[in-house]
Amino acid sequence: MDPHDFRFSTQISHLALDIGGTLIKLVYFSANGDHCEESRDGSIFVCSGCSVLQGRLCFAKFETRKIDDCLEFIRFNILQQHSSVQHPNGTARDKLSIKATGGGAFKFADLFNEKFGILFDKEDEMHCLVGGANYLLKTVPREAFTYLDGQKEFVQIDHNDLYPYLLVNIGSGVSMIKVDGDGKYERISGTSLGGGTFLGLGKLLTKCKSFDELLELSHHGNNRVIDMLVGDIYGGTDYSKIGLSSTAIASSFGKAISDGKELEDYQPEDVARSLLRMISNNIGQIAYLNALRFGLKSIFFGGFFIRGHEYTMDTISVAVHFWSRGEAKAMFLTHEGFLGALGAFASYKDQSHNKDLKSHHHTLQRANCSGDNFRHIPVTANVNDGETIECSIINRV
Amino acid sequence: MDPHDFRFSTQISHLALDIGGTLIKLVYFSANGDHCEESRDGSIFVCSGCSVLQGRLCFAKFETRKIDDCLEFIRFNILQQHSSVQHPNGTARDKLSIKATGGGAFKFADLFNEKFGILFDKEDEMHCLVGGANYLLKTVPREAFTYLDGQKEFVQIDHNDLYPYLLVNIGSGVSMIKVDGDGKYERISGTSLGGGTFLGLGKLLTKCKSFDELLELSHHGNNRVIDMLVGDIYGGTDYSKIGLSSTAIASSFGKAISDGKELEDYQPEDVARSLLRMISNNIGQIAYLNALRFGLKSIFFGGFFIRGHEYTMDTISVAVHFWSRGEAKAMFLTHEGFLGALGAFASYKDQSHNKDLKSHHHTLQRANCSGDNFRHIPVTANVNDGETIECSIINRV
Repeated sequence: MDPHDFRFSTQISHLALDIGGTLIKLVYFSANGDHCEESRDGSIFVCSGCSVLQGRLCFAKFETRKIDDCLEFIRFNILQQHSSVQHPNGTARDKLSIKATGGGAFKFADLFNEKFGILFDKEDEMHCLVGGANYLLKTVPREAFTYLDGQKEFVQIDHNDLYPYLLVNIGSGVSMIKVDGDGKYERISGTSLGGGTFLGLGKLLTKCKSFDELLELSHHGNNRVIDMLVGDIYGGTDYSKIGLSSTAIASSFGKAISDGKELEDYQPEDVARSLLRMISNNIGQIAYLNALRFGLKSIFFGGFFIRGHEYTMDTISVAVHFWSRGEAKAMFLTHEGFLGALGAFASYKDQSHNKDLKSHHHTLQRANCSGDNFRHIPVTANVNDGETIECSIINRV
Repeated sequence: MDPHDFRFSTQISHLALDIGGTLIKLVYFSANGDHCEESRDGSIFVCSGCSVLQGRLCFAKFETRKIDDCLEFIRFNILQQHSSVQHPNGTARDKLSIKATGGGAFKFADLFNEKFGILFDKEDEMHCLVGGANYLLKTVPREAFTYLDGQKEFVQIDHNDLYPYLLVNIGSGVSMIKVDGDGKYERISGTSLGGGTFLGLGKLLTKCKSFDELLELSHHGNNRVIDMLVGDIYGGTDYSKIGLSSTAIASSFGKAISDGKELEDYQPEDVARSLLRMISNNIGQIAYLNALRFGLKSIFFGGFFIRGHEYTMDTISVAVHFWSRGEAKAMFLTHEGFLGALGAFASYKDQSHNKDLKSHHHTLQRANCSGDNFRHIPVTANVNDGETIECSIINRV
């Protein structure tokens, strides 16, 4: 992504980063330019000496391997603004501190410091994932939804009956976290078969260049060409005694054993489809087993693996439905890929001790992001992935 | 395999087949040629009008896609003998009935009938797997063992404390069966990521020709070249807060995302190793979650995926150890690949109504296969996979 493709017309602030193995996710606040002393619906308590800043949360992502693009984006769009605020005297000693999470917060800390003098205020990855998920579930309506048989159905979250739930974050790998409340959580499981496996194996097998290209391929494929179905083993019949239909996948990629074909003889579309189904189904199964283990009724799937892709969600939903015999439902999140970054963003509010950010110390206000006052703003090309969230923050001047 | 490579010096009988998606497994009884009225240690109760036939159980396997080799083996080694017994008058109408299980018992029933007039007496696949496992665990000493840190340690089975246990059969796909006793079981789970996935993906990625070649490749590989480790994301450090070391695999094949390399740039050995670890670890994890769910203390792994391969067993063992935090142990079976075929073989004993087999109606005796009287006979090249089991059967004349 060319970081110059988009010009911010308003001041942006409060950048938070989630640097994963594959993707860097950014959340930042973009002010509308109008300050007011209270929210529009009057529901926000505003402390003495504070002002409410109207604006919206914006989202962007970069590939981790193209971190230079991300650095350029930050330099061009954020650092220039901040330098005028943070460094009024132009002193080189002043450093900007930003919230960062994910493994890359450790791996790339020196790079950001050396290049721009940016200090990472590191937040724990799981803590941020949970913080981001809780924020979305409790604040943003039409955030969670089910997807079955091609039907997307938004779920009304009962705030009094939200916990405990299982959060399944599918990034390069997969983390499964039992969430018991704000800041109360435990990483109970995970699997190494995640988005990185899909893209890694997918690139090797299909020569496609990107995750989106691979997803698009899978959309046109037929996994039955390469998967061994129960019917392939049983001569076209079901194995009904144990509840396996003839079309159930007995062995993912199992047909590649037997017919002497080589990789070049398969359509990349079929390979991509089989791969997507294998990984989605496996995640759905392991998630359900863990939900069952801890008696968790709700399973929310997040992470950039999903990308609102219908077949991915359908496969995960079917897996949860199949293994739970219809007792559990998979739920998805509109801002699925930004849980960690949102959690890091939300953690700004408790940092009154952070001297570097004191002039920009805000509290993320939730009231304005809920109810009828909430509205989605369409995706801005090349920068915002997912939808922006209109909100306001309290500016403690 | 050339079916003529091996000549049976003694009469063989009681052929049982387990025809899976990838492999056909055969178990048959090979008599030593000496009949006696009681067992050598006098422990066998012999009914009036019966004689005890000494011999051994032998094992063989063929690839399902090369079923013609299997047919030729049966024609050459078994059918000729049986024709003289079964068809004394040379009548073409008499048909030989043999026990068969697995999906291929349905798929290939017509082929066997049309080609040789062999009728399949079909036995349920799960029933046979359980029957075979129970037979081995209760009868054959030094059958079950653990494998950790390069150490194989045989497990003494307490017959009074065997049930319930979890049987994980890794064929093309994977079945997980809760076993509560003889004939008492339930298939509780499974996964489509099994031996067929290993070989199918392995063939596409490495161009190797066979399962054994792929296993051999994996033996010399290093999965860290292609898997994304926790340390790769965290800049070489652990994520100790959640118990993930820097060397834990965060994302199988995850490194294939980021470095722009193509399939040809990777060593097939490393690809094979990563694949084996991905699948073995996943099976170990799902098995443990199911054992936990049903409170099963013992997990036995069988199926031809394992093949006594040390790294495979080590990975499964480590997975069970890791996910159970040391509370559960993976156990393996010496005759791992022949559970279904053994179960089909054992089912001959209850078939007194089977007219086609009445002159050969035997009961598999267990006493002679246990205790100090049991001894293993070395593998016979090209025919016997795994070890033969010395045993005797009662011949109801």
